[in-house]
Amino acid sequence: MSKIGVAVCGATGSVGQRFIELLQGHPWFEVKCIMASERSEGKKYSEVVQWIVSPRIPEAVKDMEIKPVSTESLKSEDIRIVFSALPADVAGPVEEQFAKAGYAVSSNAAAHRKDPDVPILIPEVNAEHIKLIPVQRKNRNWSGLIVTEANCTTTGLIMPLKPIYENFGIEKVIVTTMQALSGAGIPGVPSMAIIDNVIPYIANEEEKVEWETLKLLGKFNGDKITPANIKVSASCNRVFVLDGHLESVLVETSRKASVEEIKKILAEFKGEPQKLNLPTAPRNPIIVLNEPNRPQPRFDRWAGEPERAKGMAVTVGRIRQDTVFEKGIKMTVLSHNTIRGAAGESILNAELLVAHKLIQ
Amino acid sequence: MSKIGVAVCGATGSVGQRFIELLQGHPWFEVKCIMASERSEGKKYSEVVQWIVSPRIPEAVKDMEIKPVSTESLKSEDIRIVFSALPADVAGPVEEQFAKAGYAVSSNAAAHRKDPDVPILIPEVNAEHIKLIPVQRKNRNWSGLIVTEANCTTTGLIMPLKPIYENFGIEKVIVTTMQALSGAGIPGVPSMAIIDNVIPYIANEEEKVEWETLKLLGKFNGDKITPANIKVSASCNRVFVLDGHLESVLVETSRKASVEEIKKILAEFKGEPQKLNLPTAPRNPIIVLNEPNRPQPRFDRWAGEPERAKGMAVTVGRIRQDTVFEKGIKMTVLSHNTIRGAAGESILNAELLVAHKLIQ
Amino acid sequence: MSKIGVAVCGATGSVGQRFIELLQGHPWFEVKCIMASERSEGKKYSEVVQWIVSPRIPEAVKDMEIKPVSTESLKSEDIRIVFSALPADVAGPVEEQFAKAGYAVSSNAAAHRKDPDVPILIPEVNAEHIKLIPVQRKNRNWSGLIVTEANCTTTGLIMPLKPIYENFGIEKVIVTTMQALSGAGIPGVPSMAIIDNVIPYIANEEEKVEWETLKLLGKFNGDKITPANIKVSASCNRVFVLDGHLESVLVETSRKASVEEIKKILAEFKGEPQKLNLPTAPRNPIIVLNEPNRPQPRFDRWAGEPERAKGMAVTVGRIRQDTVFEKGIKMTVLSHNTIRGAAGESILNAELLVAHKLIQ
Amino acid sequence: MSKIGVAVCGATGSVGQRFIELLQGHPWFEVKCIMASERSEGKKYSEVVQWIVSPRIPEAVKDMEIKPVSTESLKSEDIRIVFSALPADVAGPVEEQFAKAGYAVSSNAAAHRKDPDVPILIPEVNAEHIKLIPVQRKNRNWSGLIVTEANCTTTGLIMPLKPIYENFGIEKVIVTTMQALSGAGIPGVPSMAIIDNVIPYIANEEEKVEWETLKLLGKFNGDKITPANIKVSASCNRVFVLDGHLESVLVETSRKASVEEIKKILAEFKGEPQKLNLPTAPRNPIIVLNEPNRPQPRFDRWAGEPERAKGMAVTVGRIRQDTVFEKGIKMTVLSHNTIRGAAGESILNAELLVAHKLIQ
Repeated sequence: MSKIGVAVCGATGSVGQRFIELLQGHPWFEVKCIMASERSEGKKYSEVVQWIVSPRIPEAVKDMEIKPVSTESLKSEDIRIVFSALPADVAGPVEEQFAKAGYAVSSNAAAHRKDPDVPILIPEVNAEHIKLIPVQRKNRNWSGLIVTEANCTTTGLIMPLKPIYENFGIEKVIVTTMQALSGAGIPGVPSMAIIDNVIPYIANEEEKVEWETLKLLGKFNGDKITPANIKVSASCNRVFVLDGHLESVLVETSRKASVEEIKKILAEFKGEPQKLNLPTAPRNPIIVLNEPNRPQPRFDRWAGEPERAKGMAVTVGRIRQDTVFEKGIKMTVLSHNTIRGAAGESILNAELLVAHKLIQ
Repeated sequence: MSKIGVAVCGATGSVGQRFIELLQGHPWFEVKCIMASERSEGKKYSEVVQWIVSPRIPEAVKDMEIKPVSTESLKSEDIRIVFSALPADVAGPVEEQFAKAGYAVSSNAAAHRKDPDVPILIPEVNAEHIKLIPVQRKNRNWSGLIVTEANCTTTGLIMPLKPIYENFGIEKVIVTTMQALSGAGIPGVPSMAIIDNVIPYIANEEEKVEWETLKLLGKFNGDKITPANIKVSASCNRVFVLDGHLESVLVETSRKASVEEIKKILAEFKGEPQKLNLPTAPRNPIIVLNEPNRPQPRFDRWAGEPERAKGMAVTVGRIRQDTVFEKGIKMTVLSHNTIRGAAGESILNAELLVAHKLIQ
Repeated sequence: MSKIGVAVCGATGSVGQRFIELLQGHPWFEVKCIMASERSEGKKYSEVVQWIVSPRIPEAVKDMEIKPVSTESLKSEDIRIVFSALPADVAGPVEEQFAKAGYAVSSNAAAHRKDPDVPILIPEVNAEHIKLIPVQRKNRNWSGLIVTEANCTTTGLIMPLKPIYENFGIEKVIVTTMQALSGAGIPGVPSMAIIDNVIPYIANEEEKVEWETLKLLGKFNGDKITPANIKVSASCNRVFVLDGHLESVLVETSRKASVEEIKKILAEFKGEPQKLNLPTAPRNPIIVLNEPNRPQPRFDRWAGEPERAKGMAVTVGRIRQDTVFEKGIKMTVLSHNTIRGAAGESILNAELLVAHKLIQ
Repeated sequence: MSKIGVAVCGATGSVGQRFIELLQGHPWFEVKCIMASERSEGKKYSEVVQWIVSPRIPEAVKDMEIKPVSTESLKSEDIRIVFSALPADVAGPVEEQFAKAGYAVSSNAAAHRKDPDVPILIPEVNAEHIKLIPVQRKNRNWSGLIVTEANCTTTGLIMPLKPIYENFGIEKVIVTTMQALSGAGIPGVPSMAIIDNVIPYIANEEEKVEWETLKLLGKFNGDKITPANIKVSASCNRVFVLDGHLESVLVETSRKASVEEIKKILAEFKGEPQKLNLPTAPRNPIIVLNEPNRPQPRFDRWAGEPERAKGMAVTVGRIRQDTVFEKGIKMTVLSHNTIRGAAGESILNAELLVAHKLIQ
């Protein structure tokens, strides 16, 4: 079959670059349009991007001309999907325009996450939420669609929470994060600010983790999502690490679970992407580590097989009984924040929609 | 009055160096003996130490001859106090020998912390626990004494916990730490291991934080300490920071406390060292920060006034209501791990003992 | 005497902040006006600055209102000196306006360094170049003045070159630098770019070092500076260090010099600021280190006594015979790039002008 | 053909681990024996190694039993080659014992580099020096052999020097290095020493670069190497980078060369390994970069194709005319210090010897 044309919107930032990189050689998708802010229009991609996610800008996109962020830019090519890495403050109306014009928008931006008819989608966790798409199309009277992904921190956390929730129920989640620099983009955190330092604050991040978790674990009830009834508390910190969000997690389950039981359900966890064998799906979305001092960002952020799923597996280690909750489990969770937590996730979302024939 | 002679035992490590540095110009104490392992005996201090805590080895100790770790080494000088920065595995019997020989041992090592008749002492928190000293002397039939200080992580945590415990009671404490490299000493964490990385494990650290907190908040009941009845859960991580342990703390209080009430009791907290105006006591042992992104290790680790108390104040910021516990308070705590959390703390302990005439 | 009123222009950047910090408590100068770009006008200094050079914005300037960059802003106060930390592209005409209006401009910007009647001034090295001021005033028909300081990298280098040049002559200088992050300002180098990395390029830096050195060592010949006849080659790199430019230097002298001779003339070097006992002058502008592995940025960047001259002394170590030039000397030089190499230097320049009655 | 059995000696250090890693799946060689110090004997490799060069110890060696460093350890297996990553102080006599017992020793240690009958071998540069092997065998009366590789810093430098030397002659070389942490091994540089710092000294490193270069560019004259008649000056620094030595290089050529000529001869350079198509040979041993700010360690250290030659290509950028020497060329050189500069190099050396039938 011929590949589906896709556009990347906001392609010069840290996440935009990951989209470009991960879409190279994709078996289903082909980048046919790069859109970015007015400043960049008409220039070559290589002229405007401060490429930082790998040694070289891929040859195939180097000379592509930057187009304005507009449905006009998509018309000359046969494009069906728009991947959006736009800043939160401009993403809202722009993504709606694309959906109105019939395009499927797989977004990394937070703008529409709270819309009742827009799913926050992580295919291993809540593939069922794609049932919101027909609702959304009806509500909004458009033929396109918008799906979002979760905040990068929520994404790492939700993966082990899902099988625990399904098997033992969850009462409370308390998470403290140590987040990577690439999450703040370019220019992002000034190097002068982070050298020999930790910054114990990331604007709006804790609130996102606390409510997105509930929507992600919620149930589709015919026309909207009923959020899960659990309590989440997050404390977010920025540390001196390039890629890979590390999270110290404490879960109070509803039914008592042993460490061995938790390890087993995490290691055996599979979801829709694994069943459908989607191109970007890791064979095992969760990898349990038994060494006492893992996961570590530098070593474990690239977890995931096969090659195309590198950075898509979440690693979980230090699974142990808690000392505060009788039914408490502690663990350390790591996920690649610009792959599983951003660009890779949005690509996997689009793959799921294609597999379910919601695109074309 | 003439100064009291003191010895530093284990003077070449990261904490030993801090002892040497902080004791320079001390108004009450004077370093008259430096003891270190056999390898170093007979050499000058400057020949064996890989000095790293400041630009220059203080002139006064540069040429001091390293003595063996033994009571023999103390006899030629008029020495009353031994500061111990010995490794945990050798500290136990050695510190007992010093106490038997009549010396006051103010120890940074963990060896005797669990002994029922040895206080873990943080003068602002549990000065009353020095009442264990007469018990200890009677039990052990010695004229010297041993006091220990808490683990560096516990020390930062306990300082804000104390006024909260006194004013509102505490049910649960959940803490995730981001600890500095100097806590691992020299050679410590290999630079190859920590660059672009976080290590989510520090051997035995979590257990220490979990039980030391109970002893520190416990009550002296005539011959021993009855530990506090609270639950503590710790997750400890090593990050790329030189000095300063940062801790994300969640406290469930017994009685509901507002953010403003917590800020007030922390900011107003004073203890014995402040009343006694001890030389190493910070004017305010807790400094409340209101900026949204503080405390940060590089900026706040040196908190404390006057000059001699730099690094002795604990900074607390991001005080906010929790979302999991109805009576929950979240905050971020920072303390200098080799000053308040180690050498400075042991010196303050010795000052308290002198003020209470338990030394001489 | 009452203090001289001064203004700081471009006060929100990395160097502007150092000006503010170093001028606190200055015995001769008092900050009476803070100017910054239009965006900031009318706001309080604390509202617009991302303060990063120390834990706290000094109280005295916190609430000062930002004024536009204009001579109008200076009129309401009794101001004689404008310290300029403006970006190179706007500094040129603005600084001229201030000089025309009668103000003394002590600039950190490169805009006027190449003007034949504007001195690049480093008081220990070429105090004599202030003789250009009367020439400048006549040429430009103004009652104010402009003096610049050298690029931060040149400043560290020139200090040891001066006594070597005077005593042994210099044929060639080959320098490779390892420069600190604060030299790139805020936001400056993205943390994503420098983690686990060195950037072997700083735009225009090498050219500056290569020609400024010649002007600084040049002779005043009545109406202009005849540059020194030496050859300089620079290679500039950015490394992961907060403050302190480190330079590997190779000098081919005209007359053979032994290592001991070089050490002696460097250690004994004094200049005008030391003779005049200027407030910001370090007792010894060059400090020779004999340890094999020094100077190191973290330990030696704050060299300089007394307190007000911290960061104003240049440290030189690893002085040794070269293996390529028969009359070659190699050494490692370190200087604090935003103090000796920027704000401190401009303040010292202003002090020299005051001492020579060229201001008021 | 069946694979040649090889042993790795000193397999637990930073270089030893690279040997283990690079030999996995090697088409000619198979690790049949791992030798390490007495402490480790009899234990499994995974029990003694603090594995740090990749996320996981390769499965094939995880459970191999550590053997003593002795010819006895080799007998039970069909082994022909010993790769030595022994510390310099023990390598000397041990490597001789292996050679006497008939084994080919490809060493990373410095012990025998100065021996007149032992080649320092970098196959692209001086493959001809293998003619020393018959001389060595005759001199020493042994059937084995010892070849060494150059110091990791020399190795990166020599690669571009070779074609320049051949085409234009070289008079002088002045190099300043910024070397990676992995070069100091494990535990190596304490993280406390290198955070926010550069260490401008590496013991004995400068001397090695200065003389090894002469031997490497020397000519075999029938029974020994006549060193090249050039002058080299090195200044070595340790920076905060995991892998990849960066070098600022200034070369004075004998005949004038333009920047374009230099670029051309570097880009076109090929040597024996490329002609022989050795398994670990990169297609292009030198890669010329034209971006103004490259090479950078994090992006360029893995240069080299195909897959097995990753880290074996040296990247050269910023090639420009010098300002001190009329025939001077400046450039920035980067090479992976534990691959091209250590383990990969020794493996390539062994491949060359096999291709020339000097092994078996």
